Amino acid sequence: MTAGDRKAWAGRFTEPTHHLVESFTTSLPFDRRLYAYDVAGSIAHCEMLGRQGILPKVEARKIIAALREIREEFESGAFKTRAGDEDVHMAIERRLIEKIGPTGGKLHTARSRNDQVALDLRLYLKDETIAVVEALADARGALSEVATRHADVVMPGYTHLQPAQPVLFAHHLLAYAEMLRRDEERFIDCLKRIDVLPLGSGALAGTTFPIDRAFVAARLGFKAISANSMDAVSDRDFAAEFLAAAAVLGMHLSRLAEDLILWASQEFGFIELPDAFATGSSIMPQKKNPDVAELIRGKSGRLFGNLMALLTVLKGLPLTYNRDLQEDKEPVFDSVDTVKASLAVLAAMLPELRVHRDRMRAAATRGFTLATELADYLSSKGVPFRDAHGIVGQVVRHCLANELRLEDLAPEQLQRFSPLFGPDVRSWLSASAAVRRRRAPGGTAPENIRRQVRRHPR
Amino acid sequence: MTAGDRKAWAGRFTEPTHHLVESFTTSLPFDRRLYAYDVAGSIAHCEMLGRQGILPKVEARKIIAALREIREEFESGAFKTRAGDEDVHMAIERRLIEKIGPTGGKLHTARSRNDQVALDLRLYLKDETIAVVEALADARGALSEVATRHADVVMPGYTHLQPAQPVLFAHHLLAYAEMLRRDEERFIDCLKRIDVLPLGSGALAGTTFPIDRAFVAARLGFKAISANSMDAVSDRDFAAEFLAAAAVLGMHLSRLAEDLILWASQEFGFIELPDAFATGSSIMPQKKNPDVAELIRGKSGRLFGNLMALLTVLKGLPLTYNRDLQEDKEPVFDSVDTVKASLAVLAAMLPELRVHRDRMRAAATRGFTLATELADYLSSKGVPFRDAHGIVGQVVRHCLANELRLEDLAPEQLQRFSPLFGPDVRSWLSASAAVRRRRAPGGTAPENIRRQVRRHPR
Amino acid sequence: MTAGDRKAWAGRFTEPTHHLVESFTTSLPFDRRLYAYDVAGSIAHCEMLGRQGILPKVEARKIIAALREIREEFESGAFKTRAGDEDVHMAIERRLIEKIGPTGGKLHTARSRNDQVALDLRLYLKDETIAVVEALADARGALSEVATRHADVVMPGYTHLQPAQPVLFAHHLLAYAEMLRRDEERFIDCLKRIDVLPLGSGALAGTTFPIDRAFVAARLGFKAISANSMDAVSDRDFAAEFLAAAAVLGMHLSRLAEDLILWASQEFGFIELPDAFATGSSIMPQKKNPDVAELIRGKSGRLFGNLMALLTVLKGLPLTYNRDLQEDKEPVFDSVDTVKASLAVLAAMLPELRVHRDRMRAAATRGFTLATELADYLSSKGVPFRDAHGIVGQVVRHCLANELRLEDLAPEQLQRFSPLFGPDVRSWLSASAAVRRRRAPGGTAPENIRRQVRRHPR
Amino acid sequence: MTAGDRKAWAGRFTEPTHHLVESFTTSLPFDRRLYAYDVAGSIAHCEMLGRQGILPKVEARKIIAALREIREEFESGAFKTRAGDEDVHMAIERRLIEKIGPTGGKLHTARSRNDQVALDLRLYLKDETIAVVEALADARGALSEVATRHADVVMPGYTHLQPAQPVLFAHHLLAYAEMLRRDEERFIDCLKRIDVLPLGSGALAGTTFPIDRAFVAARLGFKAISANSMDAVSDRDFAAEFLAAAAVLGMHLSRLAEDLILWASQEFGFIELPDAFATGSSIMPQKKNPDVAELIRGKSGRLFGNLMALLTVLKGLPLTYNRDLQEDKEPVFDSVDTVKASLAVLAAMLPELRVHRDRMRAAATRGFTLATELADYLSSKGVPFRDAHGIVGQVVRHCLANELRLEDLAPEQLQRFSPLFGPDVRSWLSASAAVRRRRAPGGTAPENIRRQVRRHPR
Repeated sequence: MTAGDRKAWAGRFTEPTHHLVESFTTSLPFDRRLYAYDVAGSIAHCEMLGRQGILPKVEARKIIAALREIREEFESGAFKTRAGDEDVHMAIERRLIEKIGPTGGKLHTARSRNDQVALDLRLYLKDETIAVVEALADARGALSEVATRHADVVMPGYTHLQPAQPVLFAHHLLAYAEMLRRDEERFIDCLKRIDVLPLGSGALAGTTFPIDRAFVAARLGFKAISANSMDAVSDRDFAAEFLAAAAVLGMHLSRLAEDLILWASQEFGFIELPDAFATGSSIMPQKKNPDVAELIRGKSGRLFGNLMALLTVLKGLPLTYNRDLQEDKEPVFDSVDTVKASLAVLAAMLPELRVHRDRMRAAATRGFTLATELADYLSSKGVPFRDAHGIVGQVVRHCLANELRLEDLAPEQLQRFSPLFGPDVRSWLSASAAVRRRRAPGGTAPENIRRQVRRHPR
Repeated sequence: MTAGDRKAWAGRFTEPTHHLVESFTTSLPFDRRLYAYDVAGSIAHCEMLGRQGILPKVEARKIIAALREIREEFESGAFKTRAGDEDVHMAIERRLIEKIGPTGGKLHTARSRNDQVALDLRLYLKDETIAVVEALADARGALSEVATRHADVVMPGYTHLQPAQPVLFAHHLLAYAEMLRRDEERFIDCLKRIDVLPLGSGALAGTTFPIDRAFVAARLGFKAISANSMDAVSDRDFAAEFLAAAAVLGMHLSRLAEDLILWASQEFGFIELPDAFATGSSIMPQKKNPDVAELIRGKSGRLFGNLMALLTVLKGLPLTYNRDLQEDKEPVFDSVDTVKASLAVLAAMLPELRVHRDRMRAAATRGFTLATELADYLSSKGVPFRDAHGIVGQVVRHCLANELRLEDLAPEQLQRFSPLFGPDVRSWLSASAAVRRRRAPGGTAPENIRRQVRRHPR
Repeated sequence: MTAGDRKAWAGRFTEPTHHLVESFTTSLPFDRRLYAYDVAGSIAHCEMLGRQGILPKVEARKIIAALREIREEFESGAFKTRAGDEDVHMAIERRLIEKIGPTGGKLHTARSRNDQVALDLRLYLKDETIAVVEALADARGALSEVATRHADVVMPGYTHLQPAQPVLFAHHLLAYAEMLRRDEERFIDCLKRIDVLPLGSGALAGTTFPIDRAFVAARLGFKAISANSMDAVSDRDFAAEFLAAAAVLGMHLSRLAEDLILWASQEFGFIELPDAFATGSSIMPQKKNPDVAELIRGKSGRLFGNLMALLTVLKGLPLTYNRDLQEDKEPVFDSVDTVKASLAVLAAMLPELRVHRDRMRAAATRGFTLATELADYLSSKGVPFRDAHGIVGQVVRHCLANELRLEDLAPEQLQRFSPLFGPDVRSWLSASAAVRRRRAPGGTAPENIRRQVRRHPR
Repeated sequence: MTAGDRKAWAGRFTEPTHHLVESFTTSLPFDRRLYAYDVAGSIAHCEMLGRQGILPKVEARKIIAALREIREEFESGAFKTRAGDEDVHMAIERRLIEKIGPTGGKLHTARSRNDQVALDLRLYLKDETIAVVEALADARGALSEVATRHADVVMPGYTHLQPAQPVLFAHHLLAYAEMLRRDEERFIDCLKRIDVLPLGSGALAGTTFPIDRAFVAARLGFKAISANSMDAVSDRDFAAEFLAAAAVLGMHLSRLAEDLILWASQEFGFIELPDAFATGSSIMPQKKNPDVAELIRGKSGRLFGNLMALLTVLKGLPLTYNRDLQEDKEPVFDSVDTVKASLAVLAAMLPELRVHRDRMRAAATRGFTLATELADYLSSKGVPFRDAHGIVGQVVRHCLANELRLEDLAPEQLQRFSPLFGPDVRSWLSASAAVRRRRAPGGTAPENIRRQVRRHPR
């Protein structure tokens, strides 16, 4: 163990760390991603130490200048890690001392790695949550754009993947925009709980130095200061909440992806992927596959898994900081990357989809999707809905047995099932009429589409 | 298949349902819990139908009166289900028609089970979310009460389950109050997304009847109306969000339980459970076990599992309603019950804990928990913190080798490690001084405890 | 606290149990399902106590007779639980003492609830694992039966839900039979680890009485005896393994269900559900929905959730028994019920499916599914496969631009893309030829189907 | 799009792939780890093609030679990936064609990426499963070694983390060896299902070429050949099973870690970590933390998460290959790495633990752990166990009230509680007697320890 390799905490230790322990415990391979946040946090902390007279101003300035250089070393790729560097924080402190000597050792006054790592993760997650919110708005905008472009396209609406009632294609797309809107709200709500400064909590109990936490919070742009130091260093519920919001978002994306995959199938044939957003097969020359949608669907797996991972890590831990918490970062990083990449590729792909309006329109009334119109018609004439439903069920059975469509039946034929069917029933039997008639708020009528589109501006 | 057994939707069907299908698909055994919400929703819907002239007022009144009687039948236990009842909704409609004849069949005008089940679940979850929020406030109050009662008790604070620095017992308890406060906020945020009326979405596309959704929303106390009918009948993200909030809460409770179990152990001996909150062993006569805390800890399992269950159900489903969604209810019911029961028993137990202040106090300085004080002392004299840490590490090593406590060292002995140690160092070497000195916001000093207690009123 | 309500372990306790604790900790509502196993275990234990002279034979006989009566009380519904009964084990012991007086208190000699609950769960799970294995064999048989009945039906095989190559419908079905076969193997492997007697482990350390564990194991049909008492009372990995096997099975069933749902859609139209296995809509009279398949798919959620629940319960528990373990039963019961019900309804439904062979056949060559045949043709003439693939890609592009099918192209037209296309190419361009040609083991050729069917006997 | 960048499957495509799609879909960053398996599979395949006359022997040899060179390029770090390389398979094929021209394009004859990726993952997982099995045996050996070294150390056995009965430290350790032994069995069982050759399944339907799958299987060391090509390319249950076995193992390790953390605590003080296996604090100079155990415990999170991730990916996918399956690799790689690293560091650490035998021994009878001895004593004199338990409960209460230990009571004092207590009772009241008396198989008596140790050879 050379002096250089000696851990910063090794005062009371007599043996060096076992090499297996070093590789098992290091977090540098993944937490180096946090370097800029670590430096920013250290600069704000150091400014405060100077301001409060805890450190001589000149030393504070010297440390800050060196920290800025270290950040540049990271950015340029010049920063060299060492075998003994446990994590990005200690690597930066080690380098600081290399650069400016023992004064560098003053940076850690009035702080601990425990509040420092909590700080770095929060700074990172604040930025990324905002980025996710923006990506969600973009994706909603893309849905809105496609909905607007194809505002008049009628398609079959499904329940149980069986044709149910005609709907506007735009209405179907905007259902996803609503989901993503709630996802956005969830991330914004989560941000309130991320946006809290933990620095100043020390290892667990606070600090004996006369620090100014409000100053540091303002400097770093935090809205609030943690109220209990033991809580601040030991909880990661804000990260679990982020992962939960990401899991729900991933669930939504998996459903949109499923719909796209179905629509792009030979059998549905509602959309076609542009070549730029499809891939082929190594063996089957004809293939054009919706790989992007499939991967978006599949990536729900890692989003669920990351959430379960962090919840499991936290389960049953006593207060306060335990090293288990080091396992918080990789699931968070992975979910951030996954969510951003999925939303970006989706927002790019959606406007490029080729929409086969004619196939949609042709399918819109297949499968007796106008049967509810007949039941509603009878119900509006005073037949109890339950009976109207039964009568139309008989009509459908008749059509099935005789290979007819509802639209094929003359009013007289319908009258055999109920004398209340009048000649005006014909006006009910078209997909576009069915769509237009659903005017109540939330329904698929065109005026509702316009209203919805405004909720998801491009 | 007798007429009575015939399904309400069976018009187009020629064969009865297979008995295995009936038992496999029924939800009545668990969704009957929703009866009061189903009736309330139906009454509001029916009032609206009458007001809008969709139903004759007299019929609407008749239906509403019968629905009230049915609710009483449920309450009194008089309601009899039948083999063919698929779910609580159809059981109630079936009973309604039994009671008032075909007019009962008019209730389903302008609505579908798809928007009805979404409504019932939201009504239920609104009530229960509020109940959970109240239970959380109670539990925080209980923590606050115990913290206040033992405001002066010092204990060792732990990191890595190793003694770290002295803290106030109250500070430790209030860390959990902070966690539960964020849980509360999460449930309140979730409530915004639950509190949306889905009724009026029909099966998926809206309805052709001139309904007044705002009236129904007002009648049922909803703050908002769903904007897209396809979204409203197919998404359960509000339930997944509830389950995620419950999972995070369960994680917090598992940690508090872990601490209680540790403290109640022979080895820690910080608290003792009253007999009323402990259980014994079937074989070992001396046993007094913290079963309540263990079960609270263990129940994090079902809370995580319920969340995973619903996320999995929703993953990859195409729009809109699919029968898979029937699997939404049991996890929600189970998490609601679990969370409420855990919080109630916890709030009852906490104030009954016997706190062994002396054992806590005695332990507070064991394990060199005042070492940081020495390092801070040196640091305040200008020694770079990193060097101060190293010096004190040597002091600790010396004490370990000689079986001494830090408090045992005279200033002169300390001076052998650093000449900067003055006689005033003694005043740093007590647990209560260490606690008092951590005055920065969030630290464990008594004034911070008072501030925290006000955040969690009893 | 009346004497009757007093807990069996209450000797050292001075206060009665709090009512919230009683309701929070009781397991009787769910573990009463284990009564028959509990009685069987007690009888075997008591026989052994008599044989070893630990109990007088006459007392042993008296206890056993009373236990049999108690079992009958359960079976007939006559067994009455009491408020203070903590679990099925204590309820039975309480009843035993009611029936035969203090001698009943001798049953618990040389055992603890800790080894007793482990025993009961293992006895239960042995039976149920065998039942699941049988249900899996039935379901494979049903798949085999349908495959045999429709042995000659060609359909499109899919990758990425895009038509890929023609396959036999039987081959597709038998892919699921293979999956279920591995599930069967997994349950059988799991059985080895379930089939171990824990009784005799006492509370954790074994027992001081001269018990004969081999006798009890033989009596209860266990293959092995646990080797370490602390392990035996504290681990539930056998249950977690069962839940994992059930989760993987549920995943397989969700995929089969997805295929059935797709095939039953209007757009695919490959199968039709008989009325007895479909359900309708409360609002849309035409609907015939594949609810059974949807629920099977959805129930993967609870199977995954139950696994996650138990893993979470066990995570981080110190040895040995902790009350958290009480949370093992509900997920196990639920997964057992779910898996059995899903397999039963599936095995009943599969042979009733109406298979639209003509629609399958017609679809089999749609989407250029014979393109690989052309590439293989060229490759067999010496063209590097990668180049052959490229050439056929050009052919497909030509067909797409001119709305042609591959089968429409005359050999001369193909020769424009490669001179190696000879007149014999025609014989490659049919779905049935494509299927027949895939004779290598595992391929979709008819002889392989016959071989596969034998692996899954009805 | 230059020729070089053109995808191998791009024949029918007219536009290049969108850059976002390229980065979103590439798997090269993680699947390059499979290069050696990919090359090995390709060599075996190519040998077979040559042997069967599907490829001219000279071309087969040329391809094989080039593949070997490519493997060396990977090993030496000389292999250069290109932006357009989608995955390791296409990167290797691209390089092959660069090296030997169009002949390289013949390698893909009679195979698809679908069976190729399944092959590579199976080859990889076979090797790694064997490695895990070996690591498990090592860890068991380490436990056995420590158990043997401290064979005579008595400690308190716990239930509910309360002192229960004295046990041998060795018995406690060997409980974990039993768990790991079952984990080993699980991995070995899983291996049966991994050890199946999928190659020859083509894209999904098999291949038209006269391949010899048995030869390839023998060459690559597979025990079996997949029976259904559609199953072979679409299922990953073998990987899910591996992840489940890893999750259960992770759960076991989390429990062992928990025990180590407790034992190393100040309060228990049963073991001490050597400096080489502990870490310190950045702020608290006295700290010596069990980070390794904490990380092992925490890593159960990722093991559970990886399992949930893959199950979610597979849920609800139709047959056969879907791009979602690309998400199979990262969780598998991560669980393999995690399990191996955890076992390795554990096996290295265990023998280095310093065992404080005296503290264990002193604690062994604290908390009335001999109370069961008294109950067993009375029971052996004919008192029904339930009554004996009650009597000893009174004794314990008396001791608590008078601050006595059970060992302090003279027989005469005991006789006040039951006249059956004779002078011989003294011989029951020592920890080592209690341990020795538990001789029934599985109990904590020394002879059982020796038997157990033989099950876990070093």
